[in-house]
Amino acid sequence: MVSEKMYGLGTRKSTIRTIFEFGRKRAAEIGEENVYDFSIGNPNVPAPAIVNQTIIDTIKEMDSCALHGYTVAPGDPEVRETIAKSINRRFGTDYAGKNLFMTSGAAAALTICFKALAEDWDEFLTFAPYFPEYKCFVESVGSELKVVPANTDDFQIRFDMLEEMLTPHIKAVIINTPNNPSGVVYSEETIKKLAEVLYAKEKEYGHPIFLISDEPYRELVYGGIEVPYVPKYYKNTLVCYSWSKSLSLPGERIGYIVVPDEIEGFEQVYGAIAGAARVLTHVNASSLFQRVVAKCVDVPSDIAAYEENGNLLYNGLIEAGFTCQKPQGAFYLFPKALEDDDYAFCERAKKYDLLLVPGTDFGCPGYFRAAYCIKKSTIEASLPAFRKLAEEYRK
Amino acid sequence: MVSEKMYGLGTRKSTIRTIFEFGRKRAAEIGEENVYDFSIGNPNVPAPAIVNQTIIDTIKEMDSCALHGYTVAPGDPEVRETIAKSINRRFGTDYAGKNLFMTSGAAAALTICFKALAEDWDEFLTFAPYFPEYKCFVESVGSELKVVPANTDDFQIRFDMLEEMLTPHIKAVIINTPNNPSGVVYSEETIKKLAEVLYAKEKEYGHPIFLISDEPYRELVYGGIEVPYVPKYYKNTLVCYSWSKSLSLPGERIGYIVVPDEIEGFEQVYGAIAGAARVLTHVNASSLFQRVVAKCVDVPSDIAAYEENGNLLYNGLIEAGFTCQKPQGAFYLFPKALEDDDYAFCERAKKYDLLLVPGTDFGCPGYFRAAYCIKKSTIEASLPAFRKLAEEYRK
Repeated sequence: MVSEKMYGLGTRKSTIRTIFEFGRKRAAEIGEENVYDFSIGNPNVPAPAIVNQTIIDTIKEMDSCALHGYTVAPGDPEVRETIAKSINRRFGTDYAGKNLFMTSGAAAALTICFKALAEDWDEFLTFAPYFPEYKCFVESVGSELKVVPANTDDFQIRFDMLEEMLTPHIKAVIINTPNNPSGVVYSEETIKKLAEVLYAKEKEYGHPIFLISDEPYRELVYGGIEVPYVPKYYKNTLVCYSWSKSLSLPGERIGYIVVPDEIEGFEQVYGAIAGAARVLTHVNASSLFQRVVAKCVDVPSDIAAYEENGNLLYNGLIEAGFTCQKPQGAFYLFPKALEDDDYAFCERAKKYDLLLVPGTDFGCPGYFRAAYCIKKSTIEASLPAFRKLAEEYRK
Repeated sequence: MVSEKMYGLGTRKSTIRTIFEFGRKRAAEIGEENVYDFSIGNPNVPAPAIVNQTIIDTIKEMDSCALHGYTVAPGDPEVRETIAKSINRRFGTDYAGKNLFMTSGAAAALTICFKALAEDWDEFLTFAPYFPEYKCFVESVGSELKVVPANTDDFQIRFDMLEEMLTPHIKAVIINTPNNPSGVVYSEETIKKLAEVLYAKEKEYGHPIFLISDEPYRELVYGGIEVPYVPKYYKNTLVCYSWSKSLSLPGERIGYIVVPDEIEGFEQVYGAIAGAARVLTHVNASSLFQRVVAKCVDVPSDIAAYEENGNLLYNGLIEAGFTCQKPQGAFYLFPKALEDDDYAFCERAKKYDLLLVPGTDFGCPGYFRAAYCIKKSTIEASLPAFRKLAEEYRK
């Protein structure tokens, strides 16, 4: 009577959601302050004040029909021009408005790219650990997601496995750096080597392999780490960006796709993106928020609280005896679980009201994700619980 | 290299868009005031002042993380509760928040319904004249759109053809009233008879036939005409609503789907809708605009200018010798072309700088659409051109 597939996708709860809901129930029982909920990757830093002021100013200044009217499907030309110039200033690129396609956030940007590129039988390749919705989005366009196992040494890329898995069926490779869930940023060396492998395989197969760079966490980096601008290293790159995290606007759904001039078949790729956006019924990205992000394009992200939280949690975990990469970006840590079975580990953690997400959910068993976009006081209060949990494993 | 289908959908210009672009070029040549562009259905009445004030107030009053954060996928529970209560007050229904699913406008609402309902091999049925994107949206979910020919007497329904075409393959019937492009409102008699036919066929086939009521123009009605509330007449109805026209917010993409309790398999239908929204990557409808429309849910639409324009154009056309239904709703007239070939007619109209859209584009040859959501002065200035055009046909 209805699509069983859609029913399944709409009703099967994700592990993250299930843990989060357990946390809400538990908080009602024992009090909010006694539940250490590291399950959800929701920005807890408010949008910079200038963003809200810009919304108010824009409403007051612009003609209402022009402001709230349809924009052309790729987005308001002036908005795209402004954003292109900002990218050029930051990364030394040479984009114009025509290289941008405004989207309703990164989820839309990614799925529009998948839908635009996927032909009859295609595969997409990504690297564990990875954002689980990739699988759902790739499958929704009738393609298959293949996953290169994690390099658990430093969560860069396992190039031996990449070379093996990069078959002629792969339409595009997806990277996400800074990474959800590992919190790691791919180094320049990694990006260079990735480009090298992709160029070699393109030559070998005689067709382009696209690189989709999913960058919602680009601005959230700590300790002076640089995030390489991927299109400078590999020409067939599509960048998917979102202001959800950088300006704390996840509910407003605003982002873009960059289609560089250098990409093979620019006109085909951009045209197919427009078609995909149309059938996914993203008529245009919010006309108000297009203007707001253009005006706020150079507003720095407010990362101080995340950086402090990341260091606090990292130091606490190391002290308790965990193994973990230092916080580099995004707002996640991805430590090694204290037993091989990460589900069992997260279940045990629950006894201490520590709500953690098993790494298996991100294609990387034996680890867990802790999202630190929460109150500093919660992290402080959680550290004794982490110590007790670790103690239990030493017995 | 890319999806040819998406490339085609993203680059083939619609007739409407082609005519509109011709108009822009022509305006640059002979001056804006000398081009009578009736091609585009874009609200030209600004959003009511209270809407913009509500945006400002909401920004000032609400906590930024709560305001701009993700809402649950079906939409903020309080927002849905508020809107449900407003619908109940207006139509005597008994909805709660759980009967609503907030969407990014009506295009998303419709396509989410199509995707939720479509199984392996399904057909959807609509009535000419119809909004041409229906075909694109239905085909994008792998189904086929069948079209009942127009009842050109009064643009109600040709029930003889409906009964013939309502085969067991039809998953859902789509109606759009007030109608784009005819400007006609389906009478209570039409809706009652439609419900009767659908109930009889459901019984005959032993499976539900859904009725999707596309209602972006619900509030834009003139001369005291009533638009029947469809779920009161037929239980398996899904309502797709949008504030694009009623509050002049087309660029902000905000609307909803109503899933009544009475619908067969409520839980399956609602679940499949959630799954479809997820894979179409409508993560949530804009969190700001969800709050704004909830607060403005009882703000009346500003229809005075449309009503005046509709009457002005109608009287002018009748005087010039055209045949046309009186303006009932939306902001379109759909007169009979003065020759059988509506494309040839619209080409001839161009000589007088009258930009009209051939009815064939809406599945109804021999007619043309004139969108009157434009300046009153343009309509006034266009009337001599319509008279000259008609004169040419009398020679």
